[in-house]
Amino acid sequence: MYVTIEGIDTAGKSTQIEALRQLFPDAVFTKEPGGTGIGQTIRSMILNGELENKHAEMFMFLADRAEHTHQVIVPNIDSLIISDRSCVSGVAYATVQHVCDMNTLVQLNRLATDNHLPHHVFILRLTPEELTYRLSQKEHDAIEARGIDYLLSIQDALIASAHALGINTHVIDASQSIDTITLEIANLIKGAL
Amino acid sequence: MYVTIEGIDTAGKSTQIEALRQLFPDAVFTKEPGGTGIGQTIRSMILNGELENKHAEMFMFLADRAEHTHQVIVPNIDSLIISDRSCVSGVAYATVQHVCDMNTLVQLNRLATDNHLPHHVFILRLTPEELTYRLSQKEHDAIEARGIDYLLSIQDALIASAHALGINTHVIDASQSIDTITLEIANLIKGAL
Repeated sequence: MYVTIEGIDTAGKSTQIEALRQLFPDAVFTKEPGGTGIGQTIRSMILNGELENKHAEMFMFLADRAEHTHQVIVPNIDSLIISDRSCVSGVAYATVQHVCDMNTLVQLNRLATDNHLPHHVFILRLTPEELTYRLSQKEHDAIEARGIDYLLSIQDALIASAHALGINTHVIDASQSIDTITLEIANLIKGAL
Repeated sequence: MYVTIEGIDTAGKSTQIEALRQLFPDAVFTKEPGGTGIGQTIRSMILNGELENKHAEMFMFLADRAEHTHQVIVPNIDSLIISDRSCVSGVAYATVQHVCDMNTLVQLNRLATDNHLPHHVFILRLTPEELTYRLSQKEHDAIEARGIDYLLSIQDALIASAHALGINTHVIDASQSIDTITLEIANLIKGAL
């Protein structure tokens, strides 16, 4: 079974994935972009801003996703796979950045993954108030500098993208305590296994 | 005006492009893949066989094409642009290698190029006999090792792809003398300018 954890910066995605590592020691943990050797190169090229064109960037993400699906997802599909991001992020970010319409993005991601989409997505959702508070507590990086409205639009798009991709979607209240969130996700995973 | 030269190995593409450089010194000469800085990196990643998945490879070619269109084609569209390969090769190779159906490939390439397709394509075509002779005269590289039938199917696909993309297509008899071919292409370019 293939599940993915999604959420905007400060939602606690990395913290939850670390907690899930303890609870599911036999699971395959992976990430997008950069979950394969060549994916690391692709990730660096994208994050270093080496591409000027937004479609070029989208196709690089799709190349990473196709390779990741082939090398990591398909060979381990009979195990539990827990991924830090997935096509759900791919569709969401590209939609908000007006790279393509959502329907085209869904088709492109189905092509890249050969229809091996996550079976379940857990989306850590923050309220505007909680997001504002968390951002005030840390230094802003490039994405966060675009502002709260941008992050909230990504958060909405994550949920809309998960639905558009037809993936079982679990929206988790990310303002709960770390342990409560971990327990909620773990119980949902165990119930689905 | 944007024109592209296409043809299988040994058809004389590089020779013709060198000859056209002398006849059109003010033209912008470029190539795919690898016509931009990042495109060189992408080209190396593909040619080194770093990607295992055929869709990943296709998306990398599309990323290169999107960036090349943005950085080289669009800014120079009022000049004469002569490109060594283009989306015509992209569609042809992927079709023969059964990566996608041709209709999908046309749509993907229209997306990558934002519909900035070549205005004219010159396809250097060899007869099976001439191809057999030329291959016998040189050492075979990886692609040529796949055999004459493969190269001929690529050649057919180049013509079919050019038509499917709706590009003005000029099929040139590549068994003619170098000078005759250059004159034929040059006259067609001058007539179209």
